[in-house]
Order: sequence, then structure tokens, then C-alpha cells
Amino acid sequence: MTLGAGAAAEPVALERWGSFHVGGREVVISGQPVREMAFNPGSVPVRIDPNGTYLMGSMYAQYMIPANPRGQAPLLMWHGGGLTGVTWETTPDGREGWQHFFLRRGWPVYVSDAVERGRSGWSMIPEQTGGQHVLLTQDNPWERFRIGDGAGSFARGTTNPGVQFPTDPESYRNFVRQVVPRFTTTDALTLDAYLALLDRVGPSVVMVHSQSGQFGWRAAQERPDKVRALVLVEPAATGDPAKVAALRDIPMLVVYGDYIATDARWPTIRANGLRFAEAVRAAGGTVDVVDLPERGIRGNSHMVMMDRNGDQVAAMIQDWLTAKGLWR
Amino acid sequence: MTLGAGAAAEPVALERWGSFHVGGREVVISGQPVREMAFNPGSVPVRIDPNGTYLMGSMYAQYMIPANPRGQAPLLMWHGGGLTGVTWETTPDGREGWQHFFLRRGWPVYVSDAVERGRSGWSMIPEQTGGQHVLLTQDNPWERFRIGDGAGSFARGTTNPGVQFPTDPESYRNFVRQVVPRFTTTDALTLDAYLALLDRVGPSVVMVHSQSGQFGWRAAQERPDKVRALVLVEPAATGDPAKVAALRDIPMLVVYGDYIATDARWPTIRANGLRFAEAVRAAGGTVDVVDLPERGIRGNSHMVMMDRNGDQVAAMIQDWLTAKGLWR
Repeated sequence: MTLGAGAAAEPVALERWGSFHVGGREVVISGQPVREMAFNPGSVPVRIDPNGTYLMGSMYAQYMIPANPRGQAPLLMWHGGGLTGVTWETTPDGREGWQHFFLRRGWPVYVSDAVERGRSGWSMIPEQTGGQHVLLTQDNPWERFRIGDGAGSFARGTTNPGVQFPTDPESYRNFVRQVVPRFTTTDALTLDAYLALLDRVGPSVVMVHSQSGQFGWRAAQERPDKVRALVLVEPAATGDPAKVAALRDIPMLVVYGDYIATDARWPTIRANGLRFAEAVRAAGGTVDVVDLPERGIRGNSHMVMMDRNGDQVAAMIQDWLTAKGLWR
Repeated sequence: MTLGAGAAAEPVALERWGSFHVGGREVVISGQPVREMAFNPGSVPVRIDPNGTYLMGSMYAQYMIPANPRGQAPLLMWHGGGLTGVTWETTPDGREGWQHFFLRRGWPVYVSDAVERGRSGWSMIPEQTGGQHVLLTQDNPWERFRIGDGAGSFARGTTNPGVQFPTDPESYRNFVRQVVPRFTTTDALTLDAYLALLDRVGPSVVMVHSQSGQFGWRAAQERPDKVRALVLVEPAATGDPAKVAALRDIPMLVVYGDYIATDARWPTIRANGLRFAEAVRAAGGTVDVVDLPERGIRGNSHMVMMDRNGDQVAAMIQDWLTAKGLWR
């Protein structure tokens, strides 16, 4: 398996591939009115009784296992808020994404959709989700993910200088198409599902992004024996400060992109992450923190894996995993 | 590439794979109240202004292209109501699904999630979706998809005699985990997205199931030059009766499973399908209709591709496609 520039053009042999759901629980709903509704315009109404038992909170995962694995553990890729596993697939401008990068290097790759999103399904059962969700307008990620230079930049059509995110209108539109509603009250359900995934797949390298930063830290705190290493790409929140000792034996890498100093929110988010990393170190753990600009890798938005130089960052992560003995 | 019983164990070489979204449109929302909400319990509330421009109605598709293709066109797999593309993947009892079956035989396979479902995202913008959705209780598919023997069978724990769907509790639960909310007012959006998919991928074999029966017929009526063949597995509705002539040059195969005569709804649904097929024939078209029990293939539920004898049905479809010159 060549790792050079020509690698992307070569076929990849899969030993097996497929998908499954994990986790979730039964929820009984009663006392709701029966509705009459038409499944198709003009058709005879159907009687829909919403009362009964639902399964909710399960999570979808898709795996691709290479024929000649070199990764020493499965690689689980967990996406961020308002998004799905599509984050890791083909980039919005049609290049191969990090799912390709790591699979091509022999990692067994598992891409999941967090609960209440994507192929995990969702439920408007208020007892469980709070019933409230957020769907992003198209200007929101442009301004909040450090693609544009702050508030009003989408309307102005301006970007952070030298940003590597593909900002042509069609590519950006493709990214917005990936956005899905986000419920704000499903963190516990989501963490449970990630634990169920670790229990099913077994000891794994876990790579997280943004919102799933907290799920990566917390899942590792609950299942330290199931996490061989933790790679956190711009984690938006931390783990449980009371359980940092549980992370002592897990190699961890935190990666931050560019334009943080001039952003409204990221200096605080990054400071929280650094403080948590320091607490893990104080408990005897090892956390490597990489600020990409300090390594000479510039122009990265919050969506590092979609940036035009994303493979440079992936290669840095790959080197780190190799140095930890997790790839041969 | 061996087609025998050992085929499932062999690695498959992919030339390329990936995903994209197609279709959708901008929707401007105004006049809605600004909300304050917490993204995480206990955190500082965030100001969410729901007014602005959204993209909605786009559709996710994932493709896997074998290194040595033998299918003479891409194979698009369109799922049914309340479900996603997961329909075609690993079966609920962990066997390889039809996506595997056809990819292993050299078809370039595209699996999509219909709009407002799965990785296509969804929107509660009432102007577009009608705002109302249906999520199935766990007994519903058991009784409606001809797994159980009619109303009350889930509570009784009874099945149609000899049903091939994997009815052990864990497998059935895995199937229910695949269920997602279904909006009842998004047919036009969905058809538009399938047309966008055909326009992007080009002339294809289209395989549909259940709800997507109508989308298969209607997409072929709108883009007869883009549909090389149409395989309809238990279509739940028909195409446009006024446009049957548009289907004249497209080979079509309709497949029905078992237990239809004793079902409450399927005799009517099947009769509608047969009447539409007859109208297509009267306009000069060819529609082959297969009742599986008449071919000696018994025990099929509505979820034919998940049934334990699903590969037998897939092989029959494969033979039909080969006979039409679409596989070499």
C-alpha cells in the first residue's frame, strides 16, 4: 500500500463492509390523541395511533475493513454538532475525505451518525428530546466555523485570509446540504450510544470533532479499557473534570486550526480544552496539543477534514498514531 | 469474480467510493421569534435567530464503484417509506444485504436517503414539510410488512407461517432501529431530488422498494433517457397514468412477495400495480411481473431484501438484468 501522492488513484480491497445500529431503549407513549392523516396528497386518510412502544436513542455505524489492515485497532470517527458521519466522507469540493485517507492506509474505519441525527433516526417524543431543535441557516457555519471573517462575513462574501476551506459557492452549498437539525437535550443519550459502540467494536482509536469532543473524553472516562488512543480535532467541550485520572493511560492528541485568536468564541473554547488537558497531565496522563499554525500548517477552518490541506493534517495524525505503536 | 456460495468471503476491490448531496433549494424564513436556548445543559444560553435562508430538499447518495465493473450502468437503490438507504445494507440479522450482493457482482452501486430522512437531513419548516410526521411504533412494521399474521400479531408473537424475515427479538429490534420519521407532504421534493440524482449520475438501472415505487415510475416518466431498466420490489404506488407511453422503451420488472392474499391492504396495492403495468403494456411497453410464490420462492415479507432467502430473489433480479443485456 503506497502512501505517496499516487495512492488515491489505486483501488482498495475490502475484506468486508457493512452497517449496524447499537444502543437505544424502549419508550412507551400513552394518552396521545389518535390522528387521521393522508400518506399521499388526495389519498384516503390513515388512522395513526401514536401510542405504543418506540425504540429511540440507537446509533448507526458503517464500517469498511481493508483486506490488509495495518491499523492495530479499529478507527472510530465521531462527527460534530448539527452534522452526521458525512463529515468524514468525500469533501464538499469532491476530494477524498479522511475516511478515505485512513482506510487507504489500512485502518478498519467506522463512521457513525450520533443519535437523533442521520441514519440513527430521530424522535419528536418530548419526554426524550425536549422537542426543541436547531437547524442552521446557510450563513451560520460560514461565520461560526471560521471560514468567513466573523459576523456579517457571509453577506459580505469575505473569508479569513488564506482560508483552506473550499469557499466557491457550489462547494459551500454542498457543505450546507450536510447540515441536519441538532437537538440540544440529547447528550446523555448520545454518550450512551457511543459507549454501546465501544462495547460492540472493542478497543479502538477514537477520533472526534467539535461537539463530539465531550463524547470522546467522556466515553474514554467511562471505558478507558476500550480506547487505545483519542484524537480530538477542535473539541468544543471537555470531559468530566472529576474523572481525569481515568484518562491516565490513553495517549491523546488535540488539534486546533487557524484564526482562533481573532474569533469571538474559540479563544475561550480552546482555553477550556487546554485547562482540561493540563488537568489530565497533572493526573499522570499524556496529552499532546498541536496548534497547526505553529507547525507551519496554515489556513485551517473549524472543518479541518474538509480543508484543501486536510490531508496534511491527517498525515500528521497518522504519524502520531504510528509513533504510538498503533500502525505498522 | 466468483458467483458461487464462496463469493461472500472474498475481498472486493473498489476503484473509488464516496458520497455527495444533490438537489434542494433555498427557502427564506422570516418573522419568526428569536429563541434563547442552551446547547448543553447548564451552559450559557445561545441566541438562535431562526430567520434566514435554509437549504432544504437535497438528497444524500453514497457510491461504491468496483474495480472491475460488469454492470453496464450504475445501479441506484431507492428505499421505502419511514426508512433510509440502510434498507440495502447489512441485514438486521447481520448477513450481507443487496448492496453487497450487487456490488460483489460488479455493479457500481449508489444507495441514497430520500429527502427529509437520514443523511439528507430534514426540516421542520412548515411551509415545506407540512410539519407533520409519523414515527412507527415497534409493532407497526411487524403487522404491516407481512412479518406477523395481521393485526395484533406483534402482541401475540405470531408470524405468517414460514416467513423468511429474521423474527428473533434481536434481529427484529435491529430492523426497528432503522425506522425514521416519515413526512407525508414531501413527495414532490423527493421526486425532484431523484431527478437531480439521475441527472448527475446519468443513465442507470433503478431499483425501488415500497414507497419509492411511485418515485421510480415517475422519475422514469420524467427522464426516460436516464433509466436503463426499472426493478420494482413491492411498489406501494404507481406512476402517472397519463404518462405511461414515456415508459415504453424501459425494461421493467415488478416483484411481489408472499402472504398477499391474506393481507388487509396488499391485494389492493398489488391490483393497482398490475393495472398500471397493463396500461404500460397497452402503450407498447414491457413489464415483467413476478409473484415469488409462483416461482417456488416462498415466505417473503414486504422487506424482501432482508428475508433469509433474499439472495435467491436478488439472483432472480440479476438474471433478469443479464437477460436484458445490462450485465456481462
